[in-house]
Amino acid sequence: MAIRLSSRDADFGARFSAFLATKREVSAEVDATVATIVDAVRADGDKALIEFTRRFDRLDLGATGIAVGEAELDAAEAAVDAETRAALAFARDRIESHHRRQKPADERYVDALGIELGHRWTAIEAVGLYVPGGTASYPSSVLMNAVPAKVAGVDRLVMVVPTPDGVLNPLVLVAARLAGVDEIYRVGGAQAVAALAYGTETIRPVDKIVGPGNAYVAAAKRRVFGTVGIDMIAGPSEVLVIADGDNDPDWIAADLLAQAEHDTAAQSILMTDDAAFADAVEAAVARQLTRLPRGAVAAASWRDYGAIILLGDLAEAPPLADRIAAEHLELAVAEPETLFERIRNAGAVFLGRHTPEVIGDYVGGSNHVLPTARSARFSSGLSVLDFVKRTSILRCDAGGLRALGPAAIALAKAEGLDAHGRSVGIRLNL
Amino acid sequence: MAIRLSSRDADFGARFSAFLATKREVSAEVDATVATIVDAVRADGDKALIEFTRRFDRLDLGATGIAVGEAELDAAEAAVDAETRAALAFARDRIESHHRRQKPADERYVDALGIELGHRWTAIEAVGLYVPGGTASYPSSVLMNAVPAKVAGVDRLVMVVPTPDGVLNPLVLVAARLAGVDEIYRVGGAQAVAALAYGTETIRPVDKIVGPGNAYVAAAKRRVFGTVGIDMIAGPSEVLVIADGDNDPDWIAADLLAQAEHDTAAQSILMTDDAAFADAVEAAVARQLTRLPRGAVAAASWRDYGAIILLGDLAEAPPLADRIAAEHLELAVAEPETLFERIRNAGAVFLGRHTPEVIGDYVGGSNHVLPTARSARFSSGLSVLDFVKRTSILRCDAGGLRALGPAAIALAKAEGLDAHGRSVGIRLNL
Repeated sequence: MAIRLSSRDADFGARFSAFLATKREVSAEVDATVATIVDAVRADGDKALIEFTRRFDRLDLGATGIAVGEAELDAAEAAVDAETRAALAFARDRIESHHRRQKPADERYVDALGIELGHRWTAIEAVGLYVPGGTASYPSSVLMNAVPAKVAGVDRLVMVVPTPDGVLNPLVLVAARLAGVDEIYRVGGAQAVAALAYGTETIRPVDKIVGPGNAYVAAAKRRVFGTVGIDMIAGPSEVLVIADGDNDPDWIAADLLAQAEHDTAAQSILMTDDAAFADAVEAAVARQLTRLPRGAVAAASWRDYGAIILLGDLAEAPPLADRIAAEHLELAVAEPETLFERIRNAGAVFLGRHTPEVIGDYVGGSNHVLPTARSARFSSGLSVLDFVKRTSILRCDAGGLRALGPAAIALAKAEGLDAHGRSVGIRLNL
Repeated sequence: MAIRLSSRDADFGARFSAFLATKREVSAEVDATVATIVDAVRADGDKALIEFTRRFDRLDLGATGIAVGEAELDAAEAAVDAETRAALAFARDRIESHHRRQKPADERYVDALGIELGHRWTAIEAVGLYVPGGTASYPSSVLMNAVPAKVAGVDRLVMVVPTPDGVLNPLVLVAARLAGVDEIYRVGGAQAVAALAYGTETIRPVDKIVGPGNAYVAAAKRRVFGTVGIDMIAGPSEVLVIADGDNDPDWIAADLLAQAEHDTAAQSILMTDDAAFADAVEAAVARQLTRLPRGAVAAASWRDYGAIILLGDLAEAPPLADRIAAEHLELAVAEPETLFERIRNAGAVFLGRHTPEVIGDYVGGSNHVLPTARSARFSSGLSVLDFVKRTSILRCDAGGLRALGPAAIALAKAEGLDAHGRSVGIRLNL
């Protein structure tokens, strides 16, 4: 049974704060292990990569090769049925056309003092994409990470994916090819992150590493940060559904369970102003749970982290939603735009009764890599912006320098940086 | 004497790689200390803050109060001379008008299938700004961090600044007021970072922390990352000057020394195709060094990390410049735009002979917080974008959901996520 809160309870404030503070992830103490692995790969390159892969994935890279070849990609294509491949291509096309609109524009202008300012965006040259192996190996995530990188203009997009016992999901390979991934290596874990960051004989280093992974991968990414860029560290997924009583309880229950089936640490929250509707959704969740293949996972998530928050009025929802800062926010109400205008923090919003969050997971076109664990307060979902960087531009002529120079010299003097002042003054004979 | 490399040397490739690999920062082992401090502030709030400030800054916050009040700001105004204040206001105005152009636009559109997509930008609600104390307490840095935050629309901009022995730079307070900082607290170090992240009785928590600091501050920021957002970790500053032989050697020497005077770990690099000019610059550096108040610092930086790279032709410069990925790139050549087009990695570029980098430090209008230590390969300077976050938007009506639904269901099935498929299917009677 999910937790129940009501804004009419006297202790609602305290209970809501306690609910927000609930930790959904146990951060394993893996830093020491990861340090050893990263250092070994940095020092010994392929040799260390082969050894760790033998140990952790029970795979002999000496026999298979580290790189995944074209023949394997062809075999993967042949193994995937036409309907699934078509759905992947459909998703790819929608993600691509949406993300094309995100390409930022360069700017140059001359201001009133004759100073030219601006900025220029360029793609990051080489990016590594970590793809988890095993059950969390999702082709949709390959598309969501790889397509924006290629839209941005990344020259070299390098995918790593562990293949425990040599098993590789053909859908992941098909998605990689569809997305334009340039190189694929069958390595995973902290050793793959180290290989991407520092390079080995086989894998040339990249400039940035993106993609989700387990605690070892996350710790390795934090460790190599600085040498390369990294994306945000993804936590367990979550949805907040704000729904009035006019929804079909079965629809909303299905949305809550779609989130819950991801992971026992996933979180589904319903906020409503209708107590009878809340009861109906809870009953529908219980009913639907019995028919789900991943029912055990979803049941644990709903039991441990699920919540139903009953409000006196949906007008109370925005400040609470802002504190939750959900990764996914469904507004299943008659006037979702009005409600959305009053909510500030959410990774992605799904407006109205016919936009289940799952559409955004696959084929909406927007990105499904979104800020978790309340980080939508300060960060954004993955986009083309994550694969480009900006150079700021300044240009003065002699007249412009004369206009700006005295103030620069005054500030340099105030900060005690005489050489700064001289660098300007020498050009102005000051 | 700075290192000399020539692209005509047989071992140039190896020597250039070794030069790139030179570490300019010793990362102190402060993690354990920082963990203790952060945990204590998280547990004991103001009490811990007062205790650490007594210990590290020799200041009794019980007597002074934690917050800096209006009367102190007024006193600081009175203590600053009119010329410096005017220069700060001039810089503030230029930074503000440039950064106003960076405000990203919202977008909404309906695609060919009738799906509405888009995104909305909102400001981060509360931001903490760390300002170092002592000699590195620069009013220009206060402006560069605070103005973009206020332009972005941050509601609550909270500055922390240590005041060792109670000493506070009045210029920093004047800059804070000019920039619109909302609250100022006289605390610093890891304890101030912890207070911003977790809150205390006096300091309400923020959503993101920006601003430079020493090794303790950097370690504390890494530690609280996730609970709050953080900006990049700033390393020692650097400049790459690409200059032809038609420059005045004294001008270029002054630019190299402006960088070198920051810090003994700063780095100044000259790249030129004119050996006689290189010699003349080196002689000018030696000459100017003797007249600099911060000559000892600049001399150590130039000796330990400075470099002159002689090229057969300036056309060789772009790939080398891309590997250096300098924080600051000066193009002191006749046709700087042509050269700039061929260079990809730089935090900021300064075009032509009349744009010394120092103009960008103070009054150019662009931001002086820029990626160091080769991170311009994957990251950008500070901008309004660092103080906003994006919510992606999706809206389907019943017809749109019918158009997208089957592909979403196919992908959910392929990924083994049945509840995902049901969340769509239940709305389509599938």
